[in-house]
Amino acid sequence: MKENIMGSPVVPVAPSRGRLRPLGLDEVRVTGGFWARRRHVNATVSLDHCRDWMERVGWLGNFGSAVEARRGREFADSDVYKLLEAMSWDGEYDVPAPLVEAIASFQEPDGYLNTAFGRPGQQPRYSDLAWGHELYCYGHLIQAGVAQIRARGEGELAKVARRAADHVCATFGPGGIEGVCGHPEIETALVELARATGEQRYLDQAALFVDRRGHGTLADPEFGRAYYQDDLPVRQATVLRGHAVRALYLAAGAVDVAVETGDEELLAAVVRQWERTVARRTYLTGGMGSHHRDESFGDDYVLPPDRAYSETCASVASVMLSWRLLLATGEPRFADLAERTLFNVVATSPSDDGRSFFYANTLHRRRRGTLPPADAESPRAESSLRAPWFAVSCCPTNVARTLALLPGYLATADDQGLQLHQYADAEITTGGIALRVGTDYPSHGRVTVRIDRTPDHPWTLSLRIPAWAQGDTALLTDPDGARRAVHPGTAEITRHFRPGDEIRLDLPVSPRWIAPDPRIDAVRGTVAVQRGPLVYCSESVDLPGGRDVDAVRVDPSVEPADGPDDTVVAPGELAAPGAPHDAPWPYGPVDPAAPPAGERSGIVLVPYHSWANRGPSTMRVWLPTTDPRGRS
Amino acid sequence: MKENIMGSPVVPVAPSRGRLRPLGLDEVRVTGGFWARRRHVNATVSLDHCRDWMERVGWLGNFGSAVEARRGREFADSDVYKLLEAMSWDGEYDVPAPLVEAIASFQEPDGYLNTAFGRPGQQPRYSDLAWGHELYCYGHLIQAGVAQIRARGEGELAKVARRAADHVCATFGPGGIEGVCGHPEIETALVELARATGEQRYLDQAALFVDRRGHGTLADPEFGRAYYQDDLPVRQATVLRGHAVRALYLAAGAVDVAVETGDEELLAAVVRQWERTVARRTYLTGGMGSHHRDESFGDDYVLPPDRAYSETCASVASVMLSWRLLLATGEPRFADLAERTLFNVVATSPSDDGRSFFYANTLHRRRRGTLPPADAESPRAESSLRAPWFAVSCCPTNVARTLALLPGYLATADDQGLQLHQYADAEITTGGIALRVGTDYPSHGRVTVRIDRTPDHPWTLSLRIPAWAQGDTALLTDPDGARRAVHPGTAEITRHFRPGDEIRLDLPVSPRWIAPDPRIDAVRGTVAVQRGPLVYCSESVDLPGGRDVDAVRVDPSVEPADGPDDTVVAPGELAAPGAPHDAPWPYGPVDPAAPPAGERSGIVLVPYHSWANRGPSTMRVWLPTTDPRGRS
Repeated sequence: MKENIMGSPVVPVAPSRGRLRPLGLDEVRVTGGFWARRRHVNATVSLDHCRDWMERVGWLGNFGSAVEARRGREFADSDVYKLLEAMSWDGEYDVPAPLVEAIASFQEPDGYLNTAFGRPGQQPRYSDLAWGHELYCYGHLIQAGVAQIRARGEGELAKVARRAADHVCATFGPGGIEGVCGHPEIETALVELARATGEQRYLDQAALFVDRRGHGTLADPEFGRAYYQDDLPVRQATVLRGHAVRALYLAAGAVDVAVETGDEELLAAVVRQWERTVARRTYLTGGMGSHHRDESFGDDYVLPPDRAYSETCASVASVMLSWRLLLATGEPRFADLAERTLFNVVATSPSDDGRSFFYANTLHRRRRGTLPPADAESPRAESSLRAPWFAVSCCPTNVARTLALLPGYLATADDQGLQLHQYADAEITTGGIALRVGTDYPSHGRVTVRIDRTPDHPWTLSLRIPAWAQGDTALLTDPDGARRAVHPGTAEITRHFRPGDEIRLDLPVSPRWIAPDPRIDAVRGTVAVQRGPLVYCSESVDLPGGRDVDAVRVDPSVEPADGPDDTVVAPGELAAPGAPHDAPWPYGPVDPAAPPAGERSGIVLVPYHSWANRGPSTMRVWLPTTDPRGRS
Repeated sequence: MKENIMGSPVVPVAPSRGRLRPLGLDEVRVTGGFWARRRHVNATVSLDHCRDWMERVGWLGNFGSAVEARRGREFADSDVYKLLEAMSWDGEYDVPAPLVEAIASFQEPDGYLNTAFGRPGQQPRYSDLAWGHELYCYGHLIQAGVAQIRARGEGELAKVARRAADHVCATFGPGGIEGVCGHPEIETALVELARATGEQRYLDQAALFVDRRGHGTLADPEFGRAYYQDDLPVRQATVLRGHAVRALYLAAGAVDVAVETGDEELLAAVVRQWERTVARRTYLTGGMGSHHRDESFGDDYVLPPDRAYSETCASVASVMLSWRLLLATGEPRFADLAERTLFNVVATSPSDDGRSFFYANTLHRRRRGTLPPADAESPRAESSLRAPWFAVSCCPTNVARTLALLPGYLATADDQGLQLHQYADAEITTGGIALRVGTDYPSHGRVTVRIDRTPDHPWTLSLRIPAWAQGDTALLTDPDGARRAVHPGTAEITRHFRPGDEIRLDLPVSPRWIAPDPRIDAVRGTVAVQRGPLVYCSESVDLPGGRDVDAVRVDPSVEPADGPDDTVVAPGELAAPGAPHDAPWPYGPVDPAAPPAGERSGIVLVPYHSWANRGPSTMRVWLPTTDPRGRS
């Protein structure tokens, strides 16, 4: 580490170098709109909901319980830590001291801390690096500790985290166990602790873990070593592969190491992997991971909408990765993907009331499901509706910490000025600059930036023009009222701003048809609708006559139009209820005649993030077209 | 049981009632052609291959080994039994007496027999009905015992099987454990043992198991109770669901019970499930099961070709079910599905040399894989090429027993005469009838039946006209040379046959385009080619310039044509190698312009069953069309 950077702003990621400087939760306040509503529910409902569930299923009680009374899967500790991280970022929330005390008391004198391993009657420490998740749990503990250091000042939780990190360095450092964890996460956490404390050894250990992976030190599991990225060294890989959350956490950690060590080769390797992953292995929603079996990326272009796994945690991890790449490079494409993922996956997972969550985020639901019981753990990641808790419940706490730190993803600064990456009602104060952002985004495209305080010299306000605006006109109005067209990428205004200056950005959020790359076989012959950053879907509750969404055909030769309340009306047809009837065998001769036309209808579409909030339904994002040719 | 039917022909299934009477391996000989080649390789190579592998990985040695030396998964015993069954059906093979002795010695005095449970240091007997597979293993033991009774006469193996069956009745009968096995299989086995021995109690126990299932006696696993069909009683279910092999074995057992007890309601329930499963949940190949995660059926119309699981064992089980339904009802649709499944899944699994096998049978392979090592177990069901053995190696022995008993699936008899269901070079002798079938089917469509011996009174020869012939003309020529068109279903000739009479059937096996039901989203905008019962595919080794199969577009407005050596040449286009290039994001505006046309080319297609026999390749069954509209 070049320097002790304690006293950095209240941010999850504080690189000591890189293109952009993050702004902290003490510098950016979200004051209204889409994200403020969700952050309010998160702070006032979801944090308690997660704590209550973990109390109920015994995960909190594991710290201090007897071996035979321990509850939950081997990684249950990590969810406690993720919740503590979320609570720490949230300035309003009292982090429960007795819980932190219990964790601290449970820690062994040498820093070891895990409720599932190491005690008499349990498997020995580090006897199962592939599946035991011990280092993974430290990772989340350390992230919680960093949150405490930055948001609350060094306290007990931070001390526990440091002792654990010291133990990791002593145990897995040079001369120690030459292994890695089956689930990456410790890497990014150790770098952040190095940043927060100035301790070089944490960074060194993270770099060691990154370089150690990919050499087949973990057993070859049924899914193959790519499952935990142990098939290829990070520097040699060309695409993200294997378990999506693992792959994305590892990539985030590799970026952190690359930035702190000035390792351009490593950074370029991750950028290359990100590029191919985005071009070939990412859903329209930004979701990643198409296999249910191993929660993994599929091969290139394997993106089935009906079997989309698109785990909520993978979306959290993807935003983490994109944010690190944005800070390192300043390139808006990383903020583009983060925006898409935040609005369409992170925002989709929690219910409106903040008490239930999607684990997997399918893009096509064929059967109306039944409501999961409100008072039971869901044994399944794949539920038809949001569930209050899961046997493996990584997603709710990951959503909670992401919403808690979300203001940190909105803006950055550099020597030239200030950059706005995500648009929300917000107040930003940093250095000599204070400004307010006012917007109804993403419902409407107007974003107004009002300068309240400014240094008495010229500086640059940068605004991301989203890639989704391509082909349409975005307009930027400067404080003098001069308007100009701006294009996807970055628009800048450099001037000697005065308090009271207003800058206005008008983004073209009218709905538009989106077609997939022809290599994505699973959605051939279909189109989707996007409006601004929001992906839309057809949901059966909006269809007349009790139809399911498979009755929908749309006509992309006519533009979709805005409907009331953020809906979109898409031109199309509805098949008669119940049609078509089954043939005994669903394959037959190519029929050159047009299929019978359905009833012409405007199809009401709703934002994907809002689906399944009105009871059991069927849903699809990709809609077949009214192409008259063939049977398809 | 109505009567002791010991002395029934050498058949796997010998119902005491039903529409058709099966012919035994002592009545039907396959003398040449497609299946004779495969049966020869099976008998001379694959049986030894399976025995050698099980010797090597320790599964044979488990019978007699110490607890700590036991090898393999909890169901490893079942593969030993399946191999013994296969060996028993094969008249040329000496069933290894020392192995049977070892199994007999290992059996407990009360009939219990399992190498994974029940000894000191192991889990107790029946302590894990959901996952322990103890009853499943008995099922395969009993099927091996039945094969021995019928093909070799009652011997040691049959005695072991009867003792096990008696133990099952004593333990799980009225007043005993009120449970079922997590993996159905015991049901069909017990009915067959009842048929082979005349012991009513085996049938009663099977009926009890069938009725007990579906009441949630097994734990709710991550996949849901549908995984092991414990979600709904068999009589109430409307479709096959959950783990495909489990679902199909259970359905087969339910048919057996229904037939023996005259339970029309139960039979009708299974027929209804079969109908919907075939109409909505079956691949073009006849393959069943579209989820890798839980090896299960997907929802209706979820049939992704690139993630097709289509387990080889499910195809074996599907043929077992269809055969039972054919015997019960006489309806040719069941033989249609069996034919499709035999030629396109069962025949696809083993390599030409009989030393490696597909476990899963995908319909679209995107990456050229690497050859699995010839001398190691494959940890994965999903291999890019056939593997010599698997950590879970249910499929090789299932193929082996199916090929061994395959002649039993060709023909049946009833009071009116003889029915030919599957076409192969064969000699059939039953009652007063002897005939020879000569054919190059499925390469060519001509089937000649020559009567060698006949009773001196009229009888009916029935010939299945396959459903795939729909829309084309099949011709039947009677012994007088009179020709008539015949249609899918059953064609009959009733006459006073004379020795030397020849009947000729000409089936239209020219290649034809096949389109999918529009509700199968995963293959919208594509077509496939079928020729007779064979499904075809494009394999990269047949494409010029090192292209992969994603370069192929076909033009279904022009008919495909026969090529040399059972290939088909399909009109179409080939994209330039490497095209198209990646966009940074694979979703964009709908482009009304036609995509650039590829190079016009005849695309060489090969039978699907033959793919991956020429080294690593990419492959697809469903081929996108040259539709000029949009980006798709």
